[in-house]
Amino acid sequence: MRDAYPVLERYAYLNAGSTGPLARATVEAIERGRHRDLTEGRGGPRYIEEMLAARERVRAALAAEIAVPPEKLALTSSTTAGCNIVLAGLGLGPGDEVVTTDSEHFGLIGALHVSGARVVVAPPEPERLLAAVTPRTRLIAVSHVLWTTGRVLPVRELKDQSGLPLLVDGAQSVGAIPVDAAGCDWYTVSAQKWLCGPDPSGALYVAEPEALRVALPTYFAQAGYEPDGAFEPKVGAARFDSGWIDPPSLAGLEAALGIHPPWRFERAAELAARCRELLAVRYEVVTEPGQATLVAFRWPDGDPAEAARRAYDRGVVIRDLPTTGLLRASCGYWNSEEDLERLLDALR
Amino acid sequence: MRDAYPVLERYAYLNAGSTGPLARATVEAIERGRHRDLTEGRGGPRYIEEMLAARERVRAALAAEIAVPPEKLALTSSTTAGCNIVLAGLGLGPGDEVVTTDSEHFGLIGALHVSGARVVVAPPEPERLLAAVTPRTRLIAVSHVLWTTGRVLPVRELKDQSGLPLLVDGAQSVGAIPVDAAGCDWYTVSAQKWLCGPDPSGALYVAEPEALRVALPTYFAQAGYEPDGAFEPKVGAARFDSGWIDPPSLAGLEAALGIHPPWRFERAAELAARCRELLAVRYEVVTEPGQATLVAFRWPDGDPAEAARRAYDRGVVIRDLPTTGLLRASCGYWNSEEDLERLLDALR
Repeated sequence: MRDAYPVLERYAYLNAGSTGPLARATVEAIERGRHRDLTEGRGGPRYIEEMLAARERVRAALAAEIAVPPEKLALTSSTTAGCNIVLAGLGLGPGDEVVTTDSEHFGLIGALHVSGARVVVAPPEPERLLAAVTPRTRLIAVSHVLWTTGRVLPVRELKDQSGLPLLVDGAQSVGAIPVDAAGCDWYTVSAQKWLCGPDPSGALYVAEPEALRVALPTYFAQAGYEPDGAFEPKVGAARFDSGWIDPPSLAGLEAALGIHPPWRFERAAELAARCRELLAVRYEVVTEPGQATLVAFRWPDGDPAEAARRAYDRGVVIRDLPTTGLLRASCGYWNSEEDLERLLDALR
Repeated sequence: MRDAYPVLERYAYLNAGSTGPLARATVEAIERGRHRDLTEGRGGPRYIEEMLAARERVRAALAAEIAVPPEKLALTSSTTAGCNIVLAGLGLGPGDEVVTTDSEHFGLIGALHVSGARVVVAPPEPERLLAAVTPRTRLIAVSHVLWTTGRVLPVRELKDQSGLPLLVDGAQSVGAIPVDAAGCDWYTVSAQKWLCGPDPSGALYVAEPEALRVALPTYFAQAGYEPDGAFEPKVGAARFDSGWIDPPSLAGLEAALGIHPPWRFERAAELAARCRELLAVRYEVVTEPGQATLVAFRWPDGDPAEAARRAYDRGVVIRDLPTTGLLRASCGYWNSEEDLERLLDALR
């Protein structure tokens, strides 16, 4: 499988938590689509029909990644877009509270902040989050896998024990660990990270599409409209689709989703465990054992951004986590033990 | 210049009002970027630095297209995204009114409808629009060029005579006719139509960035944030940037903006006038003389969608306008008199 991802010939690419490696097959599908756009144009009845059909194939393939029905999945550009769609639709306001962890990405907490509700922050532990719930809590909103440490939160447990609506940011889970989103109310997907799709691409699971207001409509949201903009929403979650996706990217995403092997989660977990072990010999690893595919560790020696840059110059791609003093390595099934050894060498 | 756009070798491509033709140089820039993503990965310090620098070059080039300072321009994915950013930020509600025309695209009126304000619809004539203003009117929101008929609205006059905040949908104006957006409060840009950029791409001019709430924040919106999502917005309109743009698309957009000749507007106007003349011999043309680069005409003979399909099969790309009985031809500087003659032949 390593041959499928040309970047691995040159780099120990340990950065899928930012953006995944691209497969040759993915880029070939994109380029075939682009060549057609170039020579046949981006218009005409056949072009539109094929684009619409491709959207539905991609919708079905992404829905399968998180074990939900396609009619409950919207095509978005990112997890950030998904969070904004949900929060804008909920119409929270002063007097409402939302509970989240102290370790979320801005893509989620930015949307929470502007919602108008009071954002209550707790450490990323189920009991602490549940203890932060009050009668005014309208929503729990957390990552399935924290982007900082890779810690896995038991999202279904949070839902079951609180009985509250639950928004899950799936940026670091989908494609990295097995996901069954069906117990959540909303679940965001980033397709450009662990699914190795074109950037940007993503999705949003909506358990009850009719129960959320369409607050950010696009042309794809409606099945008919009046001159004043009053519209009949499409059936299902397609009403939340966040806009145009070019056919080459749809083809690339379809190709990317088609090449992941069935052993992907086991292999990625194995490599993450090995990465943790190797790093722990020399560094303080803050990721606990048995989490997801991100491994974060404290840089003992000056600026972590400088360390990431030096590693890059030595052919190893990781990232620093600003303001934390941490470096983060992302382990996918496409990585090898040798990539991990190169990481250790590059940090010396 | 026709050689720059390979689609013209095969089709009389008269559909830039949907999506513009792609230049070979644009696709080459995209593919160079994609090849680099494939072989060097989508990560690392240099990748991020170059991506950020490319965003600023594209911002400056798009700002120049509408004669505004780059620091007043946000990078978005579409005119629809721009309209949602503005309406979500304005926080209108019951008791407020917005005035628009009866001929707007759903990308604008969808956002108006969900704003909570009452949408007041008037015919697309300045005096009728101004007559619809009441003491409750908070916003006038119209296209600069109507997507249906190509009619040009005197947007500055609407602003000057009403004294009201003005949102302009520039989907069919930017790249088609000379635009100076500086007199408007907000002006949306689609870069994939008359500017021939990658799809999707666009921008939003915001005259007073500090006066509009950031209602749909992305990572690019902030210059620093707290664990509860409270954030310091970036300086200027960059706070409204609507998310990640892949470096290949940034490179493609930069290339696309760089190849338009100085005579583009004159030539497009000349071709639109000629198109109108030719069509008027046989059809009822609803576009009045001296408008922009769209020419709409009534199809006398059955289903216009069927006529568009037949034209496509004969190598001519135009579109029908659902529910109106109209067909629409888009004339760009890249078109020729021969394209127009092929259109007439294809409709026979």
